Amino acid sequence: MTDNPRKQAALDYHEKPRPGKLAIAVTKPFTTPAELALAYTPGVAEPVRAIMAEPADAYRYTSKGNLVAVISDGSAVLGLGKAGALASKPVMEGKAVLFKKFADVDVFDIEVESETPEQFIDTVARIGVTFGGINLEDIAAPHCFEIEKALQERLDIPVFHDDQHGTAIIVAAGLLNALELQGKRIEDVRIVCLGAGAAGMASLRLCQALGAARDNMFVIDRAGVIYDDRDNLPDYKAEFARSGDGPRTLSEAMHGADVFIGVSGPGLVDADMIASMAEKPVVFALSNPTPEILPEVAQSVRADLIMATGRSDYPNQVNNVLGFPFIFRGALDVHAKTINQAMHLAAVEALRALAHEPVPRTVLDAYDRESWSFGPDYIIPTPLDPRLIDVVPNAVARAAVESGAARAPYPAHYQDN
Amino acid sequence: MTDNPRKQAALDYHEKPRPGKLAIAVTKPFTTPAELALAYTPGVAEPVRAIMAEPADAYRYTSKGNLVAVISDGSAVLGLGKAGALASKPVMEGKAVLFKKFADVDVFDIEVESETPEQFIDTVARIGVTFGGINLEDIAAPHCFEIEKALQERLDIPVFHDDQHGTAIIVAAGLLNALELQGKRIEDVRIVCLGAGAAGMASLRLCQALGAARDNMFVIDRAGVIYDDRDNLPDYKAEFARSGDGPRTLSEAMHGADVFIGVSGPGLVDADMIASMAEKPVVFALSNPTPEILPEVAQSVRADLIMATGRSDYPNQVNNVLGFPFIFRGALDVHAKTINQAMHLAAVEALRALAHEPVPRTVLDAYDRESWSFGPDYIIPTPLDPRLIDVVPNAVARAAVESGAARAPYPAHYQDN
Repeated sequence: MTDNPRKQAALDYHEKPRPGKLAIAVTKPFTTPAELALAYTPGVAEPVRAIMAEPADAYRYTSKGNLVAVISDGSAVLGLGKAGALASKPVMEGKAVLFKKFADVDVFDIEVESETPEQFIDTVARIGVTFGGINLEDIAAPHCFEIEKALQERLDIPVFHDDQHGTAIIVAAGLLNALELQGKRIEDVRIVCLGAGAAGMASLRLCQALGAARDNMFVIDRAGVIYDDRDNLPDYKAEFARSGDGPRTLSEAMHGADVFIGVSGPGLVDADMIASMAEKPVVFALSNPTPEILPEVAQSVRADLIMATGRSDYPNQVNNVLGFPFIFRGALDVHAKTINQAMHLAAVEALRALAHEPVPRTVLDAYDRESWSFGPDYIIPTPLDPRLIDVVPNAVARAAVESGAARAPYPAHYQDN
Repeated sequence: MTDNPRKQAALDYHEKPRPGKLAIAVTKPFTTPAELALAYTPGVAEPVRAIMAEPADAYRYTSKGNLVAVISDGSAVLGLGKAGALASKPVMEGKAVLFKKFADVDVFDIEVESETPEQFIDTVARIGVTFGGINLEDIAAPHCFEIEKALQERLDIPVFHDDQHGTAIIVAAGLLNALELQGKRIEDVRIVCLGAGAAGMASLRLCQALGAARDNMFVIDRAGVIYDDRDNLPDYKAEFARSGDGPRTLSEAMHGADVFIGVSGPGLVDADMIASMAEKPVVFALSNPTPEILPEVAQSVRADLIMATGRSDYPNQVNNVLGFPFIFRGALDVHAKTINQAMHLAAVEALRALAHEPVPRTVLDAYDRESWSFGPDYIIPTPLDPRLIDVVPNAVARAAVESGAARAPYPAHYQDN
């Protein structure tokens, strides 16, 4: 028990009337002895034989094709750090709820107790055949990078580390729109990224794929701006390390910057830093629940700012739920082997373009607004937008087919958009 | 497509309207932004913190306590042998259906691709924290023995190889009743077991725990009756190896035997062997779908026979579904650390005793019988018996509490029986 009503409500929600948030549903009729004989022996031998003869038939006769594993080692849980495998389970079940409710993707949450990345990789690789895709979750950098890479090489289903690519996709969609509104091109902007973890590195890589210049990027960790003269620089940081002279501190880097991407911790940016940025800056302060700088503080010193956070109580929420359910929906629907960069970029473009469309009445009602349209306080769609399921999976599936990642054709039931 | 209507019906059942037999159900309300904030961030941080402080709270705030993994490597699937991990998936999903429908136990099916028992053990051990129990399924002997033992040592949740213990429990319950009807004591009977795999060895061990004498047991594999003078005898077969002189073939062993347990293959027993058994013999011909000998053949030479098979179209079906859903229900309800032999024996006794009770009307109707009661054609309850859920979990849970396997008390909602 806790005497904080908000915390108690969260505990009660998880405990009552039965513990947890997930259960299994049986999708086939199962009341008569004849149905028992179809679901189990002897009938079940037929799909077994079919899959032995043609492994792809697992997508026809089992739940594999709609089944994603949300897998964590609990090494970087929310803002709580190394919570451990067991304690990460409520988060992974929550992710399963989002997958199911937003895109009808079935998820088994799997918590892994491992001591080394190799143990984690071996474990997930060996159970991979169970699933149509794998969503890695809350795995700390730097191991998350080698884990994702190794698993994608060993498995013929998508392996997607949402903290990297999911975040990067939403950031990129919002950033492109913010820059459009500010009259700037991504090719020209100077980008400061505070935080050199999974989300930051993936966001910068995707920005680069969209045209941003590496020379215009400044990545900052606890030791300051990352330069290639630093000792013991790990590979994933070296990728964006700068050479030669230039700003060495966050304050110095922010001076004249066009874009700030914060994926670090609460309150690390002050008003003076925002004031020193270039004209018409873009600030994504994504530390959650407390951003690097609060919107009201940043806007008090810069009226020409466009700002996004990770919070639902400010405009422009960078929320991964805009991405992962729909990206996997599209990938699963074409039996994708991977979720490649072409599919990431297709999701970015679908989200970017959707923000330009008139906001549907249901969304206005949900957010209690009279009107709302593309502009500084609406650069990305909201999670409750019913059109996401119509546009993002389609774009991802089409990119999968065109890029050779799909094993099945573009689904006939998809509407063209 | 197949031109066999029965096979096509089984394939259609698995394919349409959507592939497979399982889906995820979200058990908590999830429509408002407030509910989203409880199910995922920020609310989900509260149960995470609670479990970090007290690991047992995973049973309060997550689905762990009602969640069993049905895990196979596909090395001994039904009668199909080494089908492989992927092709075993329809069977494991079928098992999940049975768990859910018979005892409301939620199951994730997990198929494991492993090359060695050690790989399999490591994999399952590392994901074990996800679950409240593990049901190992369709894993070939001899590896199944070391796998179960090693996993139970490494995990603090029940690890139950159903092909061993589930089968043994139903066999033992039926055998005790058959012997009662034949006027014999298990301590005195001579038992012939054809098949030295997982089911056979576990059945003999349980018979021994119930009083059967090892000296009265004859285990037969492809090479004949197992004696300790055989070269390269594996440990699990050595346990029941005989010494000295005695019968060396199945025919010789059957001569004068009281009990035959067949867990081998179709048609391996002939009428002459049955005719040579002792007065009032008991024959459990459990090879499925085709028994070692058909009941009509055996009964044609021995009117004093009591017979059981694995089939639903003969009386006395030895069907594991009488056991595993209810055994795990009881084990989960007391947060058991293991399913020990005391719990196995409690399940045996509950099933044995239930067969002595009057058959309920719903069961008579389901099997289209006017009357039916304890006797040669009713030595074990039927899978559709609605009383199973009332008596087996209670017996197992009580044994768990009394034997020290339980972490939670005997459930208040259990009715005493």
